Amino acid sequence: MSAAGPWTATVLTLFPEMFPGSLGHSLAGKALAAERVRIETIQIREFATDRHASVDDSPFGGGAGLVMRPDVIDSALRSVVTEGSHRPILYLSPRGTPLTQARVIALAEGPGPILLCGRYEGVDQRVLDAWAMEEVSLGDYVLSGGEPAALVLLDACIRLLPGVMGNEDTTAEESFSHGLLEYPHYTRPADWAGREVPPVLLSGNHAEIARWRQAQAEAITRARRPDLMRAFEARSVPARK
Amino acid sequence: MSAAGPWTATVLTLFPEMFPGSLGHSLAGKALAAERVRIETIQIREFATDRHASVDDSPFGGGAGLVMRPDVIDSALRSVVTEGSHRPILYLSPRGTPLTQARVIALAEGPGPILLCGRYEGVDQRVLDAWAMEEVSLGDYVLSGGEPAALVLLDACIRLLPGVMGNEDTTAEESFSHGLLEYPHYTRPADWAGREVPPVLLSGNHAEIARWRQAQAEAITRARRPDLMRAFEARSVPARK
Repeated sequence: MSAAGPWTATVLTLFPEMFPGSLGHSLAGKALAAERVRIETIQIREFATDRHASVDDSPFGGGAGLVMRPDVIDSALRSVVTEGSHRPILYLSPRGTPLTQARVIALAEGPGPILLCGRYEGVDQRVLDAWAMEEVSLGDYVLSGGEPAALVLLDACIRLLPGVMGNEDTTAEESFSHGLLEYPHYTRPADWAGREVPPVLLSGNHAEIARWRQAQAEAITRARRPDLMRAFEARSVPARK
Repeated sequence: MSAAGPWTATVLTLFPEMFPGSLGHSLAGKALAAERVRIETIQIREFATDRHASVDDSPFGGGAGLVMRPDVIDSALRSVVTEGSHRPILYLSPRGTPLTQARVIALAEGPGPILLCGRYEGVDQRVLDAWAMEEVSLGDYVLSGGEPAALVLLDACIRLLPGVMGNEDTTAEESFSHGLLEYPHYTRPADWAGREVPPVLLSGNHAEIARWRQAQAEAITRARRPDLMRAFEARSVPARK
């Protein structure tokens, strides 16, 4: 915890009741209870100005669905962003840049993000442009709104905050930490249903185990994610001039 | 709803209290309340056999963290999978195949998946192999466990089930439905903070609007996701022989 208080996420949403949701349990739940982390929600509807409390309207140019109004989103953001703030402002959207572990680590090292959760067809483009908002996508699929995506992004960040996980070593060996998928894991029983643990893991030879795990990580990455493997190899073996 | 009952997801987890979580609200919450969708949870710990109710143990070969035992996971799965079942069994893991909208659509069209949520370092590889489990990843980042990922996967599926969304047309024009990111949206006010809506959208010329939107979708996809654009172009323009 810095002098400025704990790592804080501020979520702009039409469904504040979705938070902390799954983050209220397990490791994140303990961090919230201990006030090592804060999750604030802002109800966007409170910034509507007409008597129906409208937050959305039909899209110009026609089409199905509703679009969230720029003026309402803008007012909600102004209520949160203080002068000189360096908090990143993220809009969760399938049109965004795919989220990576590197971006998660950077967000966890900062003061905590402001997250805008869209609903319906999305948010008016002008307010995204006006705030130069960072658009972030969880992956190539479509959700009912930004809220489930915000919960995942926050889960990924919170587990990295100091003191949240019991064992900090565990993050050094996980998927993406060296640009590869993780090697397979085995535990007791050593012989289960006629399936044995790979003998090398029982050898006690730490160097050999490390080589086997590296080879497994490379093999699984090559088989499942040739895109990651190409990036890994490009970093590992500089091209000859 | 088919004769066999509503679309049902069965989640194997150490944290059943995380469900339905965010899915208890908004569209998914209404579908759950109306019993158009079911989310069952199975507490994996109930299948532990020792007096400490252990579900995990140290990894063979050493290293930080704990690995979920194959025998316990296997017993939990056997309690759920009935003979002749065609329900897909998914293990949520960053080592998996990246989730796509096409896979979401297929899962929504089926009877509903069985989802295994790992915690700690993950699950013993032998039980993944024995069940030929489909490993699915939300994206290239690491979560505290499979539960937040399961909530996102279920959200993506549930919104596509018949009768869940008010307007079925809205899914036809969204990101990935034609292999492109979606065009930008605009709504009232037409002039906001000195920023105007692109004039074409006010023209009433539907053909021109459609062309503009297609060009915007292609431009944003090319700029942000050259990988998707290459796949789109490969499908659109067959290579000359």
